[in-house]
Amino acid sequence: MTLEEKAGLCSGADFWHTKGIERLGIPSVMVSDGPHGLRKQEGETDHLGVNESIKAVCFPAACAVASSFDTDLIEKMGETLGEECQAEDVSVLLGPGVNIKRSPLCGRNFEYFSEDPYLAGKMAAAYIRGVQSKGVGTSIKHFAANNQEYNRMSCSSEVSRRTLREIYLPAFEEAVKAARPKTVMCSYNKINGVYSSENRKLLRDILRDEWGFEGYVMTDWGAVNDRVKGLAAGLELEMPSSGGMNDAKIVKAVQDGTLDEQLLDRAVERFLRVVFDYVDHRNPDAVFDREADHKKAVDIEAECAVLLQNNGLLPLKQGKKIAYIGAYAEKPRYQGGGSSHINASRVTSAWEAAQKKDRNVTYAQGFPFDGDVKDDQKFAEAIELAKSSDVAVIFAGLPDSFESEGFDRKNMKMPDCQNALIEEIARVQPNIVVVLHNGSPVEVPWADKVSAILEMYLGGQGVGEACDRLLYGEANPSGHLAETFPYRLEDNPSYLYFLGDGKKVHYGEGVYVGYRYYDKKKIPVRWAFGHGLSYTSFAFENLRASAEEMDDEGTIEVSIDVRNKGERAGKEVVQLYVSDRNGTFGRPDKELKGFAKVPLEQGERKTVTFKLCARDLSYYHEALGDWYAPSGSYEISIGPSSDCLEAKTTITFRTKKLLPFTVDGTTTLGELLADPRTAAVIQQMMAEAQKAMAANTPNEEAADSGDMMSAEAIQAMMQAMPLKSIVSFGMMNGEQMEGLITVLNQTIGAV
Amino acid sequence: MTLEEKAGLCSGADFWHTKGIERLGIPSVMVSDGPHGLRKQEGETDHLGVNESIKAVCFPAACAVASSFDTDLIEKMGETLGEECQAEDVSVLLGPGVNIKRSPLCGRNFEYFSEDPYLAGKMAAAYIRGVQSKGVGTSIKHFAANNQEYNRMSCSSEVSRRTLREIYLPAFEEAVKAARPKTVMCSYNKINGVYSSENRKLLRDILRDEWGFEGYVMTDWGAVNDRVKGLAAGLELEMPSSGGMNDAKIVKAVQDGTLDEQLLDRAVERFLRVVFDYVDHRNPDAVFDREADHKKAVDIEAECAVLLQNNGLLPLKQGKKIAYIGAYAEKPRYQGGGSSHINASRVTSAWEAAQKKDRNVTYAQGFPFDGDVKDDQKFAEAIELAKSSDVAVIFAGLPDSFESEGFDRKNMKMPDCQNALIEEIARVQPNIVVVLHNGSPVEVPWADKVSAILEMYLGGQGVGEACDRLLYGEANPSGHLAETFPYRLEDNPSYLYFLGDGKKVHYGEGVYVGYRYYDKKKIPVRWAFGHGLSYTSFAFENLRASAEEMDDEGTIEVSIDVRNKGERAGKEVVQLYVSDRNGTFGRPDKELKGFAKVPLEQGERKTVTFKLCARDLSYYHEALGDWYAPSGSYEISIGPSSDCLEAKTTITFRTKKLLPFTVDGTTTLGELLADPRTAAVIQQMMAEAQKAMAANTPNEEAADSGDMMSAEAIQAMMQAMPLKSIVSFGMMNGEQMEGLITVLNQTIGAV
Repeated sequence: MTLEEKAGLCSGADFWHTKGIERLGIPSVMVSDGPHGLRKQEGETDHLGVNESIKAVCFPAACAVASSFDTDLIEKMGETLGEECQAEDVSVLLGPGVNIKRSPLCGRNFEYFSEDPYLAGKMAAAYIRGVQSKGVGTSIKHFAANNQEYNRMSCSSEVSRRTLREIYLPAFEEAVKAARPKTVMCSYNKINGVYSSENRKLLRDILRDEWGFEGYVMTDWGAVNDRVKGLAAGLELEMPSSGGMNDAKIVKAVQDGTLDEQLLDRAVERFLRVVFDYVDHRNPDAVFDREADHKKAVDIEAECAVLLQNNGLLPLKQGKKIAYIGAYAEKPRYQGGGSSHINASRVTSAWEAAQKKDRNVTYAQGFPFDGDVKDDQKFAEAIELAKSSDVAVIFAGLPDSFESEGFDRKNMKMPDCQNALIEEIARVQPNIVVVLHNGSPVEVPWADKVSAILEMYLGGQGVGEACDRLLYGEANPSGHLAETFPYRLEDNPSYLYFLGDGKKVHYGEGVYVGYRYYDKKKIPVRWAFGHGLSYTSFAFENLRASAEEMDDEGTIEVSIDVRNKGERAGKEVVQLYVSDRNGTFGRPDKELKGFAKVPLEQGERKTVTFKLCARDLSYYHEALGDWYAPSGSYEISIGPSSDCLEAKTTITFRTKKLLPFTVDGTTTLGELLADPRTAAVIQQMMAEAQKAMAANTPNEEAADSGDMMSAEAIQAMMQAMPLKSIVSFGMMNGEQMEGLITVLNQTIGAV
Repeated sequence: MTLEEKAGLCSGADFWHTKGIERLGIPSVMVSDGPHGLRKQEGETDHLGVNESIKAVCFPAACAVASSFDTDLIEKMGETLGEECQAEDVSVLLGPGVNIKRSPLCGRNFEYFSEDPYLAGKMAAAYIRGVQSKGVGTSIKHFAANNQEYNRMSCSSEVSRRTLREIYLPAFEEAVKAARPKTVMCSYNKINGVYSSENRKLLRDILRDEWGFEGYVMTDWGAVNDRVKGLAAGLELEMPSSGGMNDAKIVKAVQDGTLDEQLLDRAVERFLRVVFDYVDHRNPDAVFDREADHKKAVDIEAECAVLLQNNGLLPLKQGKKIAYIGAYAEKPRYQGGGSSHINASRVTSAWEAAQKKDRNVTYAQGFPFDGDVKDDQKFAEAIELAKSSDVAVIFAGLPDSFESEGFDRKNMKMPDCQNALIEEIARVQPNIVVVLHNGSPVEVPWADKVSAILEMYLGGQGVGEACDRLLYGEANPSGHLAETFPYRLEDNPSYLYFLGDGKKVHYGEGVYVGYRYYDKKKIPVRWAFGHGLSYTSFAFENLRASAEEMDDEGTIEVSIDVRNKGERAGKEVVQLYVSDRNGTFGRPDKELKGFAKVPLEQGERKTVTFKLCARDLSYYHEALGDWYAPSGSYEISIGPSSDCLEAKTTITFRTKKLLPFTVDGTTTLGELLADPRTAAVIQQMMAEAQKAMAANTPNEEAADSGDMMSAEAIQAMMQAMPLKSIVSFGMMNGEQMEGLITVLNQTIGAV
């Protein structure tokens, strides 16, 4: 292969195809936008979702799918998508998106899974397993810390190493380690000043060296900054084509010695391995059965929808006169705008589904499909219809123009016209169900005035049929929230920092994202992470652990019995959280470290078992450069929601990891006392000092009078005293101190 | 002067004296702890407030004094302290402390003024003017970003440049520029990894080069890290003595050429200028009149106390039977522990004051002076007394062991025994006044059950007499809060970050400290910054500005009439806040930029006038490295509290300052459109691109159908597009782009 051919393989042939080399039998293969369906463009190409793509099946978006908490479900969805790709000869489906929902306002939240990295990672891994089981690649994206649309192509996400490791990277880590995606898509933005597309720390040190990624890294469309730098940093494929410009730069860099040709060879090898893996697994018999897949889309969405509140009005009783109100009843909002936008093969609305089933339903539009315009006549018609019915089901949510790839939401509100209509109907009709269609949380000021709220998210083209089943109890809601619904935008942890100044966005809230923040700050929320109701009810019983203690290499199994104690079959989402109970600074109150979706017939009981290891207890210790959990107590709590964890147990953890410790003049007595390696030497020293002080101290009466520092204050000041101060206070001379420091470092073994 | 002599002058002779050189007529002079009185030690010396000092007058601590919002008052207090120093031959009084109250938990908050840098700066300047008018120096401290006690000697405060400039430095800046303190005391801690004592950016670039400081910088006691580095960075005086060790290091550094002797000469010159300034202004006739100064302490405290709530029970009516309850009635808590601790010449309690005036008062201790111990019998006695009286006045607050220099509070609670007693008394007595003695905010869960709350803070040795006057209406409360009282600790902006991990403390809340945070996050608070009641009431009328527009060099005068519309004389605190109304990212809702304490007879009206300049509208722009206010609208609001600002007006500001701007491939179209220097070129380019796109776009029906991105999304994506992407999307080739960038930079004048 010539240098020019090798360089040429490092960028696309056009918008959607990689380059081939005919004389070498290297084929040009296609990649297509995902993640919840195929956006395969054959005519005019673009990366904005502007122009038409082939008819395909629009599955529920990631915001909905994550709410299923069901890895089997998403794996099966992945299998279907993989089959569709084979049928359409698409080598890589560009998904899943695992960016963390830092703010409810990120315009692209609907394409992402969760505010929680553990959940996002598990869902992503299952999706990848599913798609790739059909011989088609995936591209987990957008790597990394791309949590807003505003200035996404130039803005730098300023994030601490710890926060990256604990919040923004683990979903990628889990997916890469557990499901080996064929490709990773780097994001547009910079991270701490360095473009993702040339971020060696990210693309090489972490992704490959630490996590063992073996596929290729491609850019988001147009994300290249300095192509040569990117190649050296671990970026294999630039998309779309640069028109040869960047290929030439690679050639030149190799020729003038600024780029090691071995790096280019390695990039090409990685790229080709994925291409030929696809070729080897081509399945020309695959069929894109749009009708069958549409049914799957309906079934999946029925598992995703979250019943947020219900006073018993749902499921709707037969024979009641039901009013469907709101444009989304007739024309659901079921997907978001941008590169994930599917040209849906067909869309069924709830209104259409109700008609097919001859339900006793009438319909009034009330408010328009898009925008925020109040039409007085439609408003009045809707109120009149609601008043004259037994139940009003209002299909509300966010219009297209309120959320999309490419820009962020301005606030967390639904359109005024929708809120006003709900309030008006609440005045005339006590039985209200609100069905929500939205990609990210909204403020619901009317929540206390309605009987039930069913969150469908952006539920894919089958959302109407799924909704019909859930409303009438043909399906039992089993989704749980993969994100917190705060009462108001100001409560969100990123509120002070979100969007930044256009050049930098400071992740000032650190690891306190989502429930980690609301828990710690004790901020009441509308609905907590993990919340979701059912038409039946469940009991959590008999929590037990396989052992009381665990060490660095060990595991503990924690089991609980879940019982369906209600009147019908249903599914419960069992969630396990871990809490550090050692007063360690800067840790969230609890973190999700296990979940399972459990189907239970009426009266049925099942045991769910989770396995925990040291990593599940750990935080990322920057100075150690590794995960670390201090020896001590950890609470394991299990329940159906992050705010309902009644089953609890405590385990003890013992680590052999020692934190890096080098003593110098700035080391405090407190630090020396806290480290098992130096405590004894210092205890002895302090005892002597206290004896000396006692001899100097005024009598006890003076101590009592409040005319001097309390013993606690003196103790605290001693703890905070660095060794150098012992010298400046004359308790030791400089030479003695040097000797002590040497002894201490020898004790630590740092010498 | 020999090299050794010069080096010798760079550290103290002992704990409290600078070195003299007899043969050159350089005297050794004394410095003493302040700030709210003299802690002059003559016997056993220490920096912990452990050992005895001379009898002196303990004035109200800074927490109280700041609440006066009265610069004249604090200036007079400074004059008194200066006179006392002359009488005691103290050359420098170690104060004032202007560190910002980042958290209510900082153990040393009582020594600091405010959560607001503007207020802290004005109060500090007045104090310095007062003390220095007597020929005595001050030492403004602790420079800088020393906002907790925990590991204060080694911990690094990790603060952004902007946050330092807007929150943690301005109080120093104002005091240095307006009042020229003779010395500055550097703090123990590191700032962004560099010890304050060797922080050249801080001690030289900012303090001297920018602000024009001409005095000397001394260490906090024992704050030296690397003495030679410190000297080079701008640290003149090490305290206390290093026993010659560091002097020798300075000598050696000069001799081996690692330290420029000119730096040493400059340090000695600065030090001596202050010493001789003191010598020149010695006043051997000065008298420390402890009785007269005690009276002043009483008068000052009467101006500081804050009436937090009052349903009309206060002032107490003559003839009523009053029960005084709580140990602080008999033995007030009037000062904090540590280096500021005064050996008070005498202390008068409220109980003593009441007895002297033959008031109808009886007393029960109820709870102990220190600690948190419930004595059932004393408890019962107190409840019985409260029940059988007309009014219960409960003297509560924080014990010594709860707050002090040297350690931080664990929570924001008062002792359980005190809270419990208040709750119990509220069950039997509807008329309750709580008098608080504390150095920093407390949670007051019983607030809604009591009639009045009077915050005395740590009010100095005259606190009891002042309290007596205020309770009985002989003085009218006029203090306003210099800090927010949040409902609970978790609401505080620093809550997630406070104390840090022992090595670093991250100032993650940025500029959102105090009311800047509660405002922005719309968090309800118990009492807002600036809040304070009176026994009379005031009207704010006729707000007017001298002009509608202002530019970089101009000023605007804003005036308001304040009228006493109540039944007695009183004083109102008039507060002026400025709000950027231009949607600028990252700015607080409003910031204090003016205040005045206005005494008004019954029915009297006065006009208060504030002068505003560009700096009052500005924030610190890191890239510009300067203060900056964008052209546009600014709201000026005036009122008696940060949460009660009914008088408002808007002014327009025009700046000629241009932000630094260099165009490269990562510059976005949005940035180019926003800058007046480049907008025209880009507007033309985009108009052409839109024409081209329009030709390619599907018909309007498709646009309506929601099957493509909205116009808003496309507009937003265009705004966010960096120039390099225009190339990768094929709208321009690389060469054309280079040309465009050159043209744009020429337009800006950046070439």
